[in-house]
Amino acid sequence: MAKLEVAFSPDLYPFYENKEAIVVVIDIFRATSAICTAFENGVKSIIPVEKVEDAKALQNKGYIAAAERQGQIVDGFHLGNSPFHYIDESITGKEVVLTTTNGTRAIFVAKNSYKIIIGSFLNFSAVCDYLKQEKKDVLLLCAGWKGRFNLEDSLFAGAVVNQLEGDVFNELSDSARATQTFYEVGKSDIDDFLINSSHRRRLKNLNLEKDIKYCLQMDQTKVVPELKGDRLVVQK
Amino acid sequence: MAKLEVAFSPDLYPFYENKEAIVVVIDIFRATSAICTAFENGVKSIIPVEKVEDAKALQNKGYIAAAERQGQIVDGFHLGNSPFHYIDESITGKEVVLTTTNGTRAIFVAKNSYKIIIGSFLNFSAVCDYLKQEKKDVLLLCAGWKGRFNLEDSLFAGAVVNQLEGDVFNELSDSARATQTFYEVGKSDIDDFLINSSHRRRLKNLNLEKDIKYCLQMDQTKVVPELKGDRLVVQK
Repeated sequence: MAKLEVAFSPDLYPFYENKEAIVVVIDIFRATSAICTAFENGVKSIIPVEKVEDAKALQNKGYIAAAERQGQIVDGFHLGNSPFHYIDESITGKEVVLTTTNGTRAIFVAKNSYKIIIGSFLNFSAVCDYLKQEKKDVLLLCAGWKGRFNLEDSLFAGAVVNQLEGDVFNELSDSARATQTFYEVGKSDIDDFLINSSHRRRLKNLNLEKDIKYCLQMDQTKVVPELKGDRLVVQK
Repeated sequence: MAKLEVAFSPDLYPFYENKEAIVVVIDIFRATSAICTAFENGVKSIIPVEKVEDAKALQNKGYIAAAERQGQIVDGFHLGNSPFHYIDESITGKEVVLTTTNGTRAIFVAKNSYKIIIGSFLNFSAVCDYLKQEKKDVLLLCAGWKGRFNLEDSLFAGAVVNQLEGDVFNELSDSARATQTFYEVGKSDIDDFLINSSHRRRLKNLNLEKDIKYCLQMDQTKVVPELKGDRLVVQK
């Protein structure tokens, strides 16, 4: 008997806060897809920070630092939140500092919860298997776009709800039921379902179509990144 | 060329705020359904207030006052937010003070917008006709439940989006597209679609099944209540 709930924005997190829940942070385009890619490529840890200044300060101390705002790499940084920035041997075994428009903020609002893990289509089955095994309450926290609802994060939430709902996860919020409806409609062609999403159009205008295709691939890795203290790591 | 957007909670209103928009406040179970019913039954105006104390103070000055919290009439009041409380000749021509858990709060967060009107299934076509005629940006503001997303308000939003989308209303938010998906799935049997909604279960536990059926009826009135100063009125 566990709860299965979805918050459509970090700004709705307070209304779903549950100290017993595992929170899955979701930012499909692109922070959580990039984080999964980085761990698949052997990064040691990722340090999420809220502000560009914080990332800059750590960069000045010698850390590899990544910063994205408005979908683009911030001036003065070499990495942003494109997954392709993390398919690179130079990050293997390293600690990387990361700040993004929406994804890192979602991590911070939930930091007092029982546990925070990182979800994306790239590690979809690994996340679902982990949650089924833990049997704790689950809160799927969509990063959205600057406080707004977005389609891709909620579609992913629906895919997870669809996998989990059953005897154990039997107490669904209205938001969880809503995402299930999306997923039922969108699952046969996710790419087509998202064709009109505002964020997809934003990325397309930035010539990031390749990133979109990459982020919508299922099960490319088995990593389940988890927040431990101030760092995201993968349990061995 | 107008925007058509949906905010799933009064707490998301700041991210959709648009001073040029007509805001449609939606609280299907039951505040906005009750307000439409009251005007259909000849009430002169409704004064929304945020707090029970405010309603009490105006009641002490001689106003008819209604107060609902947790789905029930607050002690010391004769009226709550059941539409059936407003099918009553004694309110004809009167001013009624109203405070509810979610609906009146939604009116207050949007009070600086261009215009606020009241939507429910009961005045669905009248609201759509009005918006089509005005051709202004539209923000459908779901009252939700204590900050959370709910199914019935977003389903109604989807019904409106479905009616309006086209050459004039051509700039849809992701949230508007999402409600369209719900509506496509739910429209053939709204009652069945909402069978598992949390609020519906809450009302059912309070023996308010009759209210639910009433609130899901389409086009029972042509009134479009509008906020003018601190009062909801119907333009003649």
